[in-house]
Amino acid sequence: MNNKTQSVSDLVIRRLPRYYRFLGELAEKGISKISSRELSSLMGLTASQIRQDLNCFGGFGQQGYGYNIILLQEEISKILGYNNLKNTIIIGAGNLGHAIAEGMHFEKRGFNLCGIFDVSKNIIGTKAAGLTVSPMSDLESFCKKKKVSVAVICIPKDSAKSVCKDLISFGIEGIWNFSHCDISEFKDLVKIENVHLGDSLAALGYSLSE
Amino acid sequence: MNNKTQSVSDLVIRRLPRYYRFLGELAEKGISKISSRELSSLMGLTASQIRQDLNCFGGFGQQGYGYNIILLQEEISKILGYNNLKNTIIIGAGNLGHAIAEGMHFEKRGFNLCGIFDVSKNIIGTKAAGLTVSPMSDLESFCKKKKVSVAVICIPKDSAKSVCKDLISFGIEGIWNFSHCDISEFKDLVKIENVHLGDSLAALGYSLSE
Repeated sequence: MNNKTQSVSDLVIRRLPRYYRFLGELAEKGISKISSRELSSLMGLTASQIRQDLNCFGGFGQQGYGYNIILLQEEISKILGYNNLKNTIIIGAGNLGHAIAEGMHFEKRGFNLCGIFDVSKNIIGTKAAGLTVSPMSDLESFCKKKKVSVAVICIPKDSAKSVCKDLISFGIEGIWNFSHCDISEFKDLVKIENVHLGDSLAALGYSLSE
Repeated sequence: MNNKTQSVSDLVIRRLPRYYRFLGELAEKGISKISSRELSSLMGLTASQIRQDLNCFGGFGQQGYGYNIILLQEEISKILGYNNLKNTIIIGAGNLGHAIAEGMHFEKRGFNLCGIFDVSKNIIGTKAAGLTVSPMSDLESFCKKKKVSVAVICIPKDSAKSVCKDLISFGIEGIWNFSHCDISEFKDLVKIENVHLGDSLAALGYSLSE
């Protein structure tokens, strides 16, 4: 990664996975290069926005040629750490935990889902995404043995904070937080990505009431 | 809603539900007013950012007094359309559909979840969030009879586009899209809010690889 990435804004970072997706779809269709203008009409961004975004990382385009799709996708995947598999667990194997375990294609994004945990006796021992759900009492030894670096929190608000505290003490470096619990007090200890689906729903409500 | 809202940026809109949440937590604790400075340290925004955001909607604060929490929350709920219940259905009653149906508190955000649909014979007739899962063959009559205005798409990519097309012809005005399918071709016909969980996961991956 070059020095330029240091100053890349969060907004640009959040657009990179989207570039990656669109480029992947083009590559699947056998397309090998694309201009910023063509990419812009596809993605609903301006061509200058696209050039500016991709320049943050050194710029991959050639004037008058456009972008080499495969190379650009590879570069974005390196920037996003897709090539560096991180051992990952899910805490909570209810409907949400199952949906995340089975629907997310973790490997494609650089995460190796290797464990799933729950407190419920009815759920422990069942399967999710090919993994057997383990009891929370196994969490510490599992995290340490497998050097787990990422945890996905799919448990209710009440227990989320204490579980996160435990996870950090077990060596977790990143938390993908689906609980409706504010865990920002841990933000100096781990990387936190909160998913507030309610905020997304509210934005839809706003656009409907405009 | 005043004229000022016309020019409010998407970013401000997306912060409003967060203000709403934090204000709700304060109100629950019996706190009745708060300064922009106090709110800023709580939310991790600057005080001037908060004043600027809330000024977009006319400004609710009083110099030297701060914000009246109940009034501000009420105003935000009006802006976001929380008071105007919209009949809402979920398409797809797999793990994700169940998780959304049971975990989202639709009513609190202005949505009345009134139906859930699936194609699978094994799922039709089962319960989710107190509703009986209906067959897709009932979709058209249900949408028209109940004047459904919002659909949550929790089905695989392959069938999402054709289902959205049908829903629009049945009178749907807003789509909350969890399928990994790009439905932007319908953006002039319905309001679309896409949930790309993969992009959120990728952002976590980036912050871990920094």
